[in-house]
Amino acid sequence: MAALGEQSEEQAMAAQPKPQNRRPISNIVIVVAMQTEALPIVNRFQLTEDPHSPFPRGVPWVRYQGTYKDLNISLIWPGKDPTLGVDSVGTISSALVTYAAIQALQPDLIINAGTAGGFKAKGASIGDVFIVSDCAFHDRRIPIPVFDLYGVGVRKTFEAPNLVKELNLKVGKLSTGDSLDMTQQDESSIIANDATVKDMELLLMFLTF
Amino acid sequence: MAALGEQSEEQAMAAQPKPQNRRPISNIVIVVAMQTEALPIVNRFQLTEDPHSPFPRGVPWVRYQGTYKDLNISLIWPGKDPTLGVDSVGTISSALVTYAAIQALQPDLIINAGTAGGFKAKGASIGDVFIVSDCAFHDRRIPIPVFDLYGVGVRKTFEAPNLVKELNLKVGKLSTGDSLDMTQQDESSIIANDATVKDMELLLMFLTF
Repeated sequence: MAALGEQSEEQAMAAQPKPQNRRPISNIVIVVAMQTEALPIVNRFQLTEDPHSPFPRGVPWVRYQGTYKDLNISLIWPGKDPTLGVDSVGTISSALVTYAAIQALQPDLIINAGTAGGFKAKGASIGDVFIVSDCAFHDRRIPIPVFDLYGVGVRKTFEAPNLVKELNLKVGKLSTGDSLDMTQQDESSIIANDATVKDMELLLMFLTF
Repeated sequence: MAALGEQSEEQAMAAQPKPQNRRPISNIVIVVAMQTEALPIVNRFQLTEDPHSPFPRGVPWVRYQGTYKDLNISLIWPGKDPTLGVDSVGTISSALVTYAAIQALQPDLIINAGTAGGFKAKGASIGDVFIVSDCAFHDRRIPIPVFDLYGVGVRKTFEAPNLVKELNLKVGKLSTGDSLDMTQQDESSIIANDATVKDMELLLMFLTF
């Protein structure tokens, strides 16, 4: 889900197992927080909702599936909150659905895609598409030595230089947090994270590995 | 993990399936964020570490198991961050390990126990043991109608009036968030949540159901 920055951007990142585990990419999981972010991808790849959900009975998580060239594509969306009917945005829902998708689908590549906020002062403009190079949390403040680093949780993403070059994409760091707004403390942390892009779900992808 | 309030407390809550699914309580899962919070419980019930972890290979999650009277008890601890070596505190780790424990162990009752911050102005004192009656987030601010309610995520816990009476425990509302400190915005949200107790993990237990 987009988080309020100065501009609205699209962002994508990719996480892949470590090199020693690398194998040909065949199964791709795309995790998207909101239905309105998911449907353009579903339509573009002509994905269809999996009638036999790989997820436990009772969860609102949705899998769309299909193929593109020789790739199996699954788009996973955490679904709507069963009580309130809004998209289950934020880090907890996306962490759970990503973990469950890893267990059920054994993907070779996980992509988190969606809208995000961007900072004009860092070179972002409305409509830009960013590939995220690094990510960190801006709302997990644990001011105890080492726990502070755990809270911020800096991670590098899987590099995709060919994609960046072919599609002429921008590359930037992303800061993630569970709020749409931005407090003074959040802003300080986002600046410390050197972020150009801000969202509400990305980093958890790494915590599920 | 305790979060900074004016006092330090212990807190416990219980979540149970809805009445129509109720069955005799046989399997209990206790989720604890930190090793130092877990070990007194492990020792009290003489639990031992499960040599055949029910969790996927590679995760740091730990299960201690044992029996007490006719109950099977599993204590689940998210373990240490593999890179930094500190306890994997906070909502995301606890959400993942709780979900995985539900899938693997099919508990009849889940208890989240540990230290927490407490507010003297709300009647909390150092050393108090609280049973949490209600919980909510104080750091998921999404100022859009309905999404705002989703962010705060108010939940009632499973009532335990006999426990409260027998052990003469205090009952209070809890507010949860991923930071140990407390910003002005956090404090406003905690007051809005009418919280006596503050921690960093509890509410996610409900998001995993």
